[in-house]
Amino acid sequence: MASACASRLTPGMASLRSPFLSRSLFSRPISLLPFRGPTRCSSQLSASISTSSFTWDDVLRAACPRYSGDGDGEGDGDDSSDLAGFFEKIRLCNRGSEMQSDFLPFVVEDQIVGYVHHGFADHLRQFDDVFTFDQEGLNGSRFGGRVGLHHLLGTREDRTEAVARVVKCLGRELIPGIRNEHFPVKSSFGGSIIFSLERAAAPYFGIKAYGVHMNGYVEKDGQEYLWIGKRSEVKPTYPGMLDHLVAGGLPHDMACGENLIKECEEEAGIPRIISCGAIPVGAVSYMDIKGYSYKRDVLFCYDLKFPESFTPNNQDGEVESFKLIPVAQVANVIRRTEFFKPNCALVITDFLFRHGYIKPEYVGYLDLLESLRSGDCS
Amino acid sequence: MASACASRLTPGMASLRSPFLSRSLFSRPISLLPFRGPTRCSSQLSASISTSSFTWDDVLRAACPRYSGDGDGEGDGDDSSDLAGFFEKIRLCNRGSEMQSDFLPFVVEDQIVGYVHHGFADHLRQFDDVFTFDQEGLNGSRFGGRVGLHHLLGTREDRTEAVARVVKCLGRELIPGIRNEHFPVKSSFGGSIIFSLERAAAPYFGIKAYGVHMNGYVEKDGQEYLWIGKRSEVKPTYPGMLDHLVAGGLPHDMACGENLIKECEEEAGIPRIISCGAIPVGAVSYMDIKGYSYKRDVLFCYDLKFPESFTPNNQDGEVESFKLIPVAQVANVIRRTEFFKPNCALVITDFLFRHGYIKPEYVGYLDLLESLRSGDCS
Repeated sequence: MASACASRLTPGMASLRSPFLSRSLFSRPISLLPFRGPTRCSSQLSASISTSSFTWDDVLRAACPRYSGDGDGEGDGDDSSDLAGFFEKIRLCNRGSEMQSDFLPFVVEDQIVGYVHHGFADHLRQFDDVFTFDQEGLNGSRFGGRVGLHHLLGTREDRTEAVARVVKCLGRELIPGIRNEHFPVKSSFGGSIIFSLERAAAPYFGIKAYGVHMNGYVEKDGQEYLWIGKRSEVKPTYPGMLDHLVAGGLPHDMACGENLIKECEEEAGIPRIISCGAIPVGAVSYMDIKGYSYKRDVLFCYDLKFPESFTPNNQDGEVESFKLIPVAQVANVIRRTEFFKPNCALVITDFLFRHGYIKPEYVGYLDLLESLRSGDCS
Repeated sequence: MASACASRLTPGMASLRSPFLSRSLFSRPISLLPFRGPTRCSSQLSASISTSSFTWDDVLRAACPRYSGDGDGEGDGDDSSDLAGFFEKIRLCNRGSEMQSDFLPFVVEDQIVGYVHHGFADHLRQFDDVFTFDQEGLNGSRFGGRVGLHHLLGTREDRTEAVARVVKCLGRELIPGIRNEHFPVKSSFGGSIIFSLERAAAPYFGIKAYGVHMNGYVEKDGQEYLWIGKRSEVKPTYPGMLDHLVAGGLPHDMACGENLIKECEEEAGIPRIISCGAIPVGAVSYMDIKGYSYKRDVLFCYDLKFPESFTPNNQDGEVESFKLIPVAQVANVIRRTEFFKPNCALVITDFLFRHGYIKPEYVGYLDLLESLRSGDCS
């Protein structure tokens, strides 16, 4: 709750003043204009995300209410009612909207299930027993045409197998990060599954992907604290960055609630008797275009209130460590740095809205609220 | 929270089986298709809202988990995961979108601040020292043109005074319900105030109106209960219908939080020491066209958790009585009846999402979530 803006850190945390602070990851000043839609990020910004290297000391310094951007140890008028830092983080999730016309709709059973870059489509043309290419324009794509599946692939299983074969042939150079996890392909969350697709290939076919993200929090003496994870330095994606307590993609054969319980066990050692108390609280969405990749993600958000006595314990080696940080200070880290994996910043911003840390009196309140569902949230 | 789906009513509540149940107010079966946008309501539906007459007994019968739609006292398979009744209530707030082209944009200082029906515009034409009518089309209105203010009305005060004079001349027949309360006219919540306008006239000029709505709840033995009000039978709008604990329009000279505290005192006798604990949790919006009226409302939502010992006490005579009802049973009343003032149903549905009573596993989850902000929420 809003009144939980604690000015102290959890006892036992390290000093807030690290002389080794990686300044390059702190946010640059940006325009105060409210967010009006996705914009393309500079390559410098992207580079800073993929080469992240910071410590918990850096995080705690940025979290500090008396934070000084210029390093002189004095507060510099940095204002928690200034939403600019939040808008910037939303933009990190929503890049490249101006490139949408470079993509062809991927249409199966008369439903648009995805979008394929015309350059990636050129790689698919050799598989003419799997993919079809109509010249007829659809939805104003500047290249006209659409991608489809061969009419002989009439069943879900046939399609799954044929596309999997193509993904394998294209190889890891074109589609990196193959995980052998299957995502359902459908036009909307409630729609029927048209086929299943390797998770790593989903953005190359512009498939909607769904996930579950959970904010784990604790209430102590009327103040709220969030459990924050720091990703392993050896994770292939976003190594070393800050993360939620629990998050995961939604496989094709599992309901949201069940998947969350599974991820709770794997990622933070949370037993079912606790995780079954997680509360679904809404969803956020974004669309992110970069090169051939068109991510269209919808994340179902959950809150789980923990007893003070609980300590998370990563089971799968993907998290380096966890810390419990006052919510208002987590908000500072989001505003001031790029330490968080971008979509986690989005889900935590949703938490900040629902728990009263972002107020209608702050300039840009409604624009920021709307921007949390910038992608097709269906 | 979701696990708070109590099956019992607050002790002391009246019998659930009223032989005088007003069945006409119970929802008719509707299509299970997810909400895809505003549709026009039947006049029968509107009539049932304006002629509401039901008792708390009727409410409690509809709230009952073992509710039987056919009155035989047996459960009829009515399913809390069926969101159709919620979609229907969202539609009640979002009527007449197909009539948008009957309205001319109302443009002041190069910003669209509202929309005026061409029929209402004809009444304004006689005031040619106040209103201007450009023929140039804007935004595809089928009548072309736009309404503006005379260039000699250069200040906020001049505009406020001139338009107030017109509203007075047009009279209560054209603009009923004059309250002598002023609303700010601006293009978005954060924009500058262009002038101020009588609250009752706002929908005739299609001005965006902002309000604050608060859900007051209590947690007892791990279960959540909502305080529900029943409006006075002599209120000019929605007499006798169910309402939140506290709600009010946002005047031009007050911040959201301050306005809420004022309304808490007036509507439910909640002292500032309690009401200052209300948490802002987001916003909902809708657009509703009927005749010359074009409502574009944005409601800032608040939650306030009360101690068990607190009992609300209406101060201004606008509420007949309050009852404390388990949240899951309030959800039943919204799904099954039209007892709630429509925009209150919207705000409570938002509460149901945030507190886990509506789950991702329910068909239509994302569509219903999106529909809570069907209007321009800026």
